[in-house]
Amino acid sequence: MTAPFHTLPEFRAILACLSAPDSGAQAAAMARNGQLTKPPGALGRLEDVAIWFAGWQGTDRPHLDRPQVIIFAGNHGVVAQGISAFPAEVTVQMGANFRAGGAAINQLSRAFGASMSVHELDLDRPTADFTKAPAMTEAEVVQALATGWNAVDPKADALVVGEMGIGNTTAAAAIACALFGGEAADWVGRGTGIDDAGLARKAQVVAAGIALHATSDPLEVLRCLGGRELAAMAGAIARARLERIPVVLDGFICTASAAVLERAVPGALDPCIAGHVSAEAAHGRLLAALGKEPLLSLGLRLGEGSGAALALAVVKGALACHSGMSTFAEAGVSAG
Amino acid sequence: MTAPFHTLPEFRAILACLSAPDSGAQAAAMARNGQLTKPPGALGRLEDVAIWFAGWQGTDRPHLDRPQVIIFAGNHGVVAQGISAFPAEVTVQMGANFRAGGAAINQLSRAFGASMSVHELDLDRPTADFTKAPAMTEAEVVQALATGWNAVDPKADALVVGEMGIGNTTAAAAIACALFGGEAADWVGRGTGIDDAGLARKAQVVAAGIALHATSDPLEVLRCLGGRELAAMAGAIARARLERIPVVLDGFICTASAAVLERAVPGALDPCIAGHVSAEAAHGRLLAALGKEPLLSLGLRLGEGSGAALALAVVKGALACHSGMSTFAEAGVSAG
Repeated sequence: MTAPFHTLPEFRAILACLSAPDSGAQAAAMARNGQLTKPPGALGRLEDVAIWFAGWQGTDRPHLDRPQVIIFAGNHGVVAQGISAFPAEVTVQMGANFRAGGAAINQLSRAFGASMSVHELDLDRPTADFTKAPAMTEAEVVQALATGWNAVDPKADALVVGEMGIGNTTAAAAIACALFGGEAADWVGRGTGIDDAGLARKAQVVAAGIALHATSDPLEVLRCLGGRELAAMAGAIARARLERIPVVLDGFICTASAAVLERAVPGALDPCIAGHVSAEAAHGRLLAALGKEPLLSLGLRLGEGSGAALALAVVKGALACHSGMSTFAEAGVSAG
Repeated sequence: MTAPFHTLPEFRAILACLSAPDSGAQAAAMARNGQLTKPPGALGRLEDVAIWFAGWQGTDRPHLDRPQVIIFAGNHGVVAQGISAFPAEVTVQMGANFRAGGAAINQLSRAFGASMSVHELDLDRPTADFTKAPAMTEAEVVQALATGWNAVDPKADALVVGEMGIGNTTAAAAIACALFGGEAADWVGRGTGIDDAGLARKAQVVAAGIALHATSDPLEVLRCLGGRELAAMAGAIARARLERIPVVLDGFICTASAAVLERAVPGALDPCIAGHVSAEAAHGRLLAALGKEPLLSLGLRLGEGSGAALALAVVKGALACHSGMSTFAEAGVSAG
């Protein structure tokens, strides 16, 4: 499938065709859950996850046989402002590391049975420095959205999108601040590990970008302050929305990309669950603004989809219990 | 190996032979962790878990190839006091369900590659009602400790112990209260789902047991207030201590059993990590008393080792990253 949009308004129009989860499958899963050999509610959040997956997958026995992890990489002109602890070359180097199988996300994808692919987006052509000009032209942001859209396997039964891009916590903070308001300092964090002076500079850079572009239109926010990998993640999540593939959100940058969709079309993130809350300071704030409760809280702040891939294991456990357990009647157990 | 103890003092003496983790392996793992292709600390708690496993497994590349799940089942005379929402027959019925592969723990063990075995301990001979007499004789508690001890595979690279036993949250609450003090009401919870009246009765039953036996010796607490499956879990954890096998603790009942060991010999639980904090009210309090920070908090309250088995997935992810990732030098990535 080639992405069926060529402009931001077309993208928005397609995103706006929201489908609902399958309420019949969800009801059947709830009924099944009540018959499984355990006290009611004893599997806690695992029960909610299984019933939620049932609705989006359209079956009372949801499965996690084909989870897909997609990593998008991009480079950012705003690194000229000195907002990262690592040099921009690292984006290319880590792309090679993903291909060679040496990064954290490779190990996690393998451990939990997910396919994994990597898409580098014009790494030799960074976005514009958003303190001076819009990060992307409309053609560029649409191209990046389409890359994400086209990368999704429509047969996947769960999706994780992750990113690599030196400078991209700054872009994510700018997006979050533009979408949800507040001070720039509320949304910046230490990223890969900047010091206090770097953190102050990052807040100034975010504030400068917001002041320059002064837009509240979510897709314009993405174009002016985002980056190619952020747009690609948004495109992939939009495609999953259309295909009703449940999405496990990763950290701050992934969630900022996703938030663009929710602000553009409320309900766009209904098939998304928060995989974890990261150590990046503003991630918890952003999840709260979206009404998403994270599955895990383990202090991760790596990106690459790593927290979401780890959360796939929780999903795997939830669906294994729901779809594999015996009922009271099948097992001959008294139901209390 | 046949359990090398025949009395509680002999058991305590063996438990007291504490070995330390391998500090060389731990240091090597810390050094390796600092070279992996990620910003320092970016994998958060996963890094701590991997380094901790390295120390106990005695290798800088810890593994989770042979995790073992052992379920112990027992029956409790104290059910005569009306403290459970389910009838005591369910213990036998669930034993059959474990053997047939239909319970939650079967699905979770399979999902995360753990072997699983079930040990029913004299289900037709419940412990004595601890409001009237000691739950077990010394011979009985030693026999149960030995069952747990002997059930451990010394080649396992991680251990989960779980339990099934109608009435055993009451026994666990009595143990926790006897070990750590406070009011009985602080330590009782809803178990499989009792109502408010049942909860009040449960607190009275716990208080009555504590008053009757009035002992603060941890192994005597286990004998007088515990149950066979609780003693078996303690025996298995003691064996893992001796073999330096890392243990992932499950919920309130498992943790209460484990706490007996720590109160008997401080340091006994050093090779134990808290898999999760359950919805059973007092579990968080008990973990805090032991200084254990849970990996997961998902509202589980099933027992059977289910929360710990789910936490094995987090361990699996942590060790996969630590032992499988490339170093900066191997990947040709700039180290920032």
